[in-house]
Amino acid sequence: MLNLVIFDFPFEGPFGADMSAAFAPLAADIDKQPGLVWKVWTEKPAEQAAGGVYLFADAAAADDFIAMHSARLESLGVKDVTINRHEVNEELSAITNASLSRD
Amino acid sequence: MLNLVIFDFPFEGPFGADMSAAFAPLAADIDKQPGLVWKVWTEKPAEQAAGGVYLFADAAAADDFIAMHSARLESLGVKDVTINRHEVNEELSAITNASLSRD
Repeated sequence: MLNLVIFDFPFEGPFGADMSAAFAPLAADIDKQPGLVWKVWTEKPAEQAAGGVYLFADAAAADDFIAMHSARLESLGVKDVTINRHEVNEELSAITNASLSRD
Repeated sequence: MLNLVIFDFPFEGPFGADMSAAFAPLAADIDKQPGLVWKVWTEKPAEQAAGGVYLFADAAAADDFIAMHSARLESLGVKDVTINRHEVNEELSAITNASLSRD
């Protein structure tokens, strides 16, 4: 069953185009994460925060990523990370145009 | 600029296939919302909660939907709704396979 995982954390920047340039290599790495369907990168420049919304193919893939990414954020000095995890209603999401597979 | 909006609220069910059947007409209606790119329907049966993650083409479309959907939830008796709104880093999201347009 698809799992949706939301990370949020305080972040001082860079934002926007500078964020894109700084994190393009990390994005390419995350795109290879086993079981990842997609990630939307989120940012709140006015509130100095950032995060991501991830769709995973199953709960085990979400588990693995949460453990790995939490450790990575901690190693980068990111604190106060919040993680929210949801099951996905695939039938309703398909009606509302959501992409639910890699292809 | 794309806006990502997350709704979460207490919900007693139905979940899963019963949720799909109950809300398919609402999903078809939401899919016609101006400026909506997609919605992922989320559910947490164990915690008696549900919600959605919405991608909108711009801030004005997100504004309009938040006002309308908040009123709809209130009219349905849903309380304690939390709404989180984010800007989207489109370049990084494209690298990680996110769908960022209707097509």
